[in-house]
Amino acid sequence: MLRPRQFASDNVSGICPEAMAALAEANRDHAPSYGADAWTARAEAAIRDLLGAPDAEVFLLFTGTAANALSLAALAPPFGVAYCHPVAHVANDECGAPQMLGHGLQLRTVGGAGGKVDPARLRERVGHEFLHSGKPAALTLTQATELGTVYSLGELRALRDAARDLGLKVHMDGARLANAIAALGARPRDVVEAAGLTALSLGGTKNGLLAAEAVVLFDREAARDFAYRRKQAGQLASKHRYLAAQWVGVLESGAWLRNAERANRVAAALEAGARRLGLEPVHPREANEVFLPLPDAALKGLEARGWAVYSDAAWGGARLVASWDSTDDDVRAFLDDLAAVLA
Amino acid sequence: MLRPRQFASDNVSGICPEAMAALAEANRDHAPSYGADAWTARAEAAIRDLLGAPDAEVFLLFTGTAANALSLAALAPPFGVAYCHPVAHVANDECGAPQMLGHGLQLRTVGGAGGKVDPARLRERVGHEFLHSGKPAALTLTQATELGTVYSLGELRALRDAARDLGLKVHMDGARLANAIAALGARPRDVVEAAGLTALSLGGTKNGLLAAEAVVLFDREAARDFAYRRKQAGQLASKHRYLAAQWVGVLESGAWLRNAERANRVAAALEAGARRLGLEPVHPREANEVFLPLPDAALKGLEARGWAVYSDAAWGGARLVASWDSTDDDVRAFLDDLAAVLA
Amino acid sequence: MLRPRQFASDNVSGICPEAMAALAEANRDHAPSYGADAWTARAEAAIRDLLGAPDAEVFLLFTGTAANALSLAALAPPFGVAYCHPVAHVANDECGAPQMLGHGLQLRTVGGAGGKVDPARLRERVGHEFLHSGKPAALTLTQATELGTVYSLGELRALRDAARDLGLKVHMDGARLANAIAALGARPRDVVEAAGLTALSLGGTKNGLLAAEAVVLFDREAARDFAYRRKQAGQLASKHRYLAAQWVGVLESGAWLRNAERANRVAAALEAGARRLGLEPVHPREANEVFLPLPDAALKGLEARGWAVYSDAAWGGARLVASWDSTDDDVRAFLDDLAAVLA
Amino acid sequence: MLRPRQFASDNVSGICPEAMAALAEANRDHAPSYGADAWTARAEAAIRDLLGAPDAEVFLLFTGTAANALSLAALAPPFGVAYCHPVAHVANDECGAPQMLGHGLQLRTVGGAGGKVDPARLRERVGHEFLHSGKPAALTLTQATELGTVYSLGELRALRDAARDLGLKVHMDGARLANAIAALGARPRDVVEAAGLTALSLGGTKNGLLAAEAVVLFDREAARDFAYRRKQAGQLASKHRYLAAQWVGVLESGAWLRNAERANRVAAALEAGARRLGLEPVHPREANEVFLPLPDAALKGLEARGWAVYSDAAWGGARLVASWDSTDDDVRAFLDDLAAVLA
Repeated sequence: MLRPRQFASDNVSGICPEAMAALAEANRDHAPSYGADAWTARAEAAIRDLLGAPDAEVFLLFTGTAANALSLAALAPPFGVAYCHPVAHVANDECGAPQMLGHGLQLRTVGGAGGKVDPARLRERVGHEFLHSGKPAALTLTQATELGTVYSLGELRALRDAARDLGLKVHMDGARLANAIAALGARPRDVVEAAGLTALSLGGTKNGLLAAEAVVLFDREAARDFAYRRKQAGQLASKHRYLAAQWVGVLESGAWLRNAERANRVAAALEAGARRLGLEPVHPREANEVFLPLPDAALKGLEARGWAVYSDAAWGGARLVASWDSTDDDVRAFLDDLAAVLA
Repeated sequence: MLRPRQFASDNVSGICPEAMAALAEANRDHAPSYGADAWTARAEAAIRDLLGAPDAEVFLLFTGTAANALSLAALAPPFGVAYCHPVAHVANDECGAPQMLGHGLQLRTVGGAGGKVDPARLRERVGHEFLHSGKPAALTLTQATELGTVYSLGELRALRDAARDLGLKVHMDGARLANAIAALGARPRDVVEAAGLTALSLGGTKNGLLAAEAVVLFDREAARDFAYRRKQAGQLASKHRYLAAQWVGVLESGAWLRNAERANRVAAALEAGARRLGLEPVHPREANEVFLPLPDAALKGLEARGWAVYSDAAWGGARLVASWDSTDDDVRAFLDDLAAVLA
Repeated sequence: MLRPRQFASDNVSGICPEAMAALAEANRDHAPSYGADAWTARAEAAIRDLLGAPDAEVFLLFTGTAANALSLAALAPPFGVAYCHPVAHVANDECGAPQMLGHGLQLRTVGGAGGKVDPARLRERVGHEFLHSGKPAALTLTQATELGTVYSLGELRALRDAARDLGLKVHMDGARLANAIAALGARPRDVVEAAGLTALSLGGTKNGLLAAEAVVLFDREAARDFAYRRKQAGQLASKHRYLAAQWVGVLESGAWLRNAERANRVAAALEAGARRLGLEPVHPREANEVFLPLPDAALKGLEARGWAVYSDAAWGGARLVASWDSTDDDVRAFLDDLAAVLA
Repeated sequence: MLRPRQFASDNVSGICPEAMAALAEANRDHAPSYGADAWTARAEAAIRDLLGAPDAEVFLLFTGTAANALSLAALAPPFGVAYCHPVAHVANDECGAPQMLGHGLQLRTVGGAGGKVDPARLRERVGHEFLHSGKPAALTLTQATELGTVYSLGELRALRDAARDLGLKVHMDGARLANAIAALGARPRDVVEAAGLTALSLGGTKNGLLAAEAVVLFDREAARDFAYRRKQAGQLASKHRYLAAQWVGVLESGAWLRNAERANRVAAALEAGARRLGLEPVHPREANEVFLPLPDAALKGLEARGWAVYSDAAWGGARLVASWDSTDDDVRAFLDDLAAVLA
């Protein structure tokens, strides 16, 4: 029997109050469809404001998989190559969406410590490409990474410089950008600038929205025809105001950052508790995820006590993720059970 | 200045109370993601029940464009041909989604009166195909049609028989299936059976949901790998319970049919009013749409009074669409203004 | 029993002596692969020279289907619309290659007399497109047309002007361009200029080559990455000199035009003979094809006498095609049998 | 100044006499197009005979890239995963053709010594796949490998068994299958059977043909619609007899095997000479390729003496490839220069 509150992922939690209230508020009268409504204008303005990018173009859509794949499709041609870390979501968890919605583009992995692409390895790898291997086109970075680490501004700048030298446009999978921002104590615009982004998948769902993400394009050329891409991929909402309202709800209220800060704080408490139990996290805990070296018996024990915990060889451990609504009580309950199964 | 209530489309209206309440109810505790939650099981059961198809497989997703394109991708290979009416949504309003998400498949149009595919013309057209023109694979019908008409069960049976003879699988774009069901006074299962459906795009958004559609597959073979298709196309919701809850909301309460009946009734009132003003509908008004032969001056006049009314040469007139929440007052307000601009 | 010489198509004939000799001559020593050889440079220069386009970029490949589809992929994005005549090869005889190799692009047909796109209808059709229907991107013209007619320079200019006004780039399917050039008595460069071409599929196979076509791009931007497209589509020959040598063989010798002139002349003789038998061609015979209104009994009679003759409702008659090696004797033999079966 | 005879690749050599003679012989009279001619039937029969597979279906086409990509497209759905070795041609030298012509399918690399996929690693890797990562669908093996090694029949059987257990269909990239057959001293049918092939890319170009490959499908289901795939990809030759004749030329005469035996023999002489110069091949020389650890200075020296020699970090050395027409004199000339530049 599953427990009603979990650390399995930040997509097992629900919709935060600010988003829910905005949905209700948007549900009055009729409104123009396909984004010609007032909520959409407000959401787009709020996102531009968040990112300090008054000229950026914003496209709301439903899933992170679509946001990532369509961003890459906008940055790389069908015969292009996009580089990512071997543990990246695009490479392991999107069922070939980048290849399919990118019309045949290739993903090539470039490793690095802590789930972060190593700029020197990137330079070396791209140096080997030629007509027959495909055209180097894009670099996609995950912030925070799949291993719960966060690129520092300096690390982003080094990758931006490498990308510029190599002729690659940079995309960021920001499914957990809020958590990274909370961890860095930087402004979103600092990350955008340090990484030299052309495209950003701005995550909302893991932050407390129903199913709402955004693609932000910082370059006129990349943005020019993106509206067609979104429509052709079946990602244009007819009742667009409801996507927009959720964003307005968390951005105008400041909940976007608060939700992430709380998730990070709870993850830190999980980490501290795990250390007290003698468990050293597999990767530095920098945002809202903690990876622990749990033996199989412990995993089974947790499962028997109603906890869903995912483990994957590629992660090197079992993953715990705190959500916008995770509490200290949740941490205590989990740590108690963890202590018991480890005993 | 746009008026707060319109007849521009059934996607300008909002979320119906039953769906909204279900969203709120689903927003408790954590729940497994990607469809492993209890709401999803309930929604799928409710849809199977609605369609009298206990063995059908149900896949929830976000938009009608995706539902149609992925259905066709499941029914037709990349080198296949799908046949549709020239006014079909797939051919005119989906920006090439069937071709792109269908990996290159061809749409071929086959005409017929009242927005309905003519079975004799279908037989003739398919008879001309050969290796070089592509493999005949699917027939896609819109019910209710883009012109607001409704295929009778007899008409569907004639098309089913033609499709069977020609080796075509049948898909139905049911964005407004509820309206068609209300118009026919038949059960959904009667339509499914009469049309010999392999795949159905079951529409929820125009019925009062936020952004929730379903693909229903009546054939094991077609359904086998559809979960991969949905995921690869970026249409798998992580917080899947919210898609599911909306469906539960309208299906378990009976609102699905009630919403459609009301929209049809209001459209009938619009039609009656238009006739009183001397306007003969361009197509028979059978569901929730009325097409009127309005002169440009009248369209401009309505616009000046705050009405958004779409007109398209392919429709042969201006289109009015009633929603689940349209009222007799709305009709009166519109007809008053219509009378004024026609005067 | 099929007769050894036919008028079924200009792809039933073989390789002309000039191309065969060049193949033999190229078959000495080793040569760099993938186009880095001397034959390729010569062939590209000869094609630029033929077209009076010193800056054009030339890409040799194997089939007309690939040449057309990859040209359209270079001119139109995946969400783009390419306009063609309803009888065009791309729409009827390429099994969805433009849609598949064009990554989902849509073909939209625009009619006109004699197999030629009507510029006024093109303007009207494009005027209806919007975000949901796809982005108008390209116009593709067939010269000579599928109905054996030839666009005059004036007709091409009118279409070029329409395309320019509508923001469409122009592609020409020149599978039988040599026949059109021979018919017009114009220079190839006149056709290129009158049509305002961005891309040309230059046909070699029907002119007497083994399997050798060329895509010629008149615009730097369109040409920039075409080498990748050709490679990714499996159309880059490793022993590239053999594609090149065939082109050198027919271009440096003047056989390209002579082959077409002869085919046109023989077709004219067929036409004249048919008229003497009381048959009025269905379309004006302007190049190397004659379309005759043959009753089924006549078609069966011809078949019984060993003639392969294709008939198609879309053509409005039975098609006879003269090849680079067709002779007056062939014409006499056919007309004798035609007279017999009509008697 | 490049020397007229090289060891750069087996695609720098020309067309062998048996193929050339067949081309000339096929160049008589007219013949039905698109494969309905007598040469095609003969070639298909010869290929079935070569492979001991009377029920296999044979599809001739132009390039190995197309043969591989279309084979994978036939074996794996768009959301499928095909496994290959990291040095495989499909992964490094086909510009994303498998992804594009495979409609989005993913290639996943599985390592192993000597350019050969390790069955244990394959089992482990496939064990990690789930809905979000894609559907395991195909295993593609290169025989002879990109590193010049040859899978033994035992190695193939172990991979076949793994593939069967994992639900993967097996494809073989046989661009140099003849060389592998010559090396193994086995019959082609033994390789087909040991590997449990569903699809084979049978290479002709590197064996002495102009540009002629074949896809052989050993399974009715996989073969059923392949004719459409070939056409849609622009790989259906209109003058199909010329593709067929080349195959007839080398198969009916036995040149197919003789050409490979000679290339292997010459490569063995190169290897022996290199050893005499103190160079130990980087990989076991088993077919017609030798990989040598040449310092940069030596590569530059060879280049200065007119030799084109390719080196790649992924290969771990410089590659020499013998062709069907390589001679002992060529070997002597090369070794003399190699000795000089190493001195």
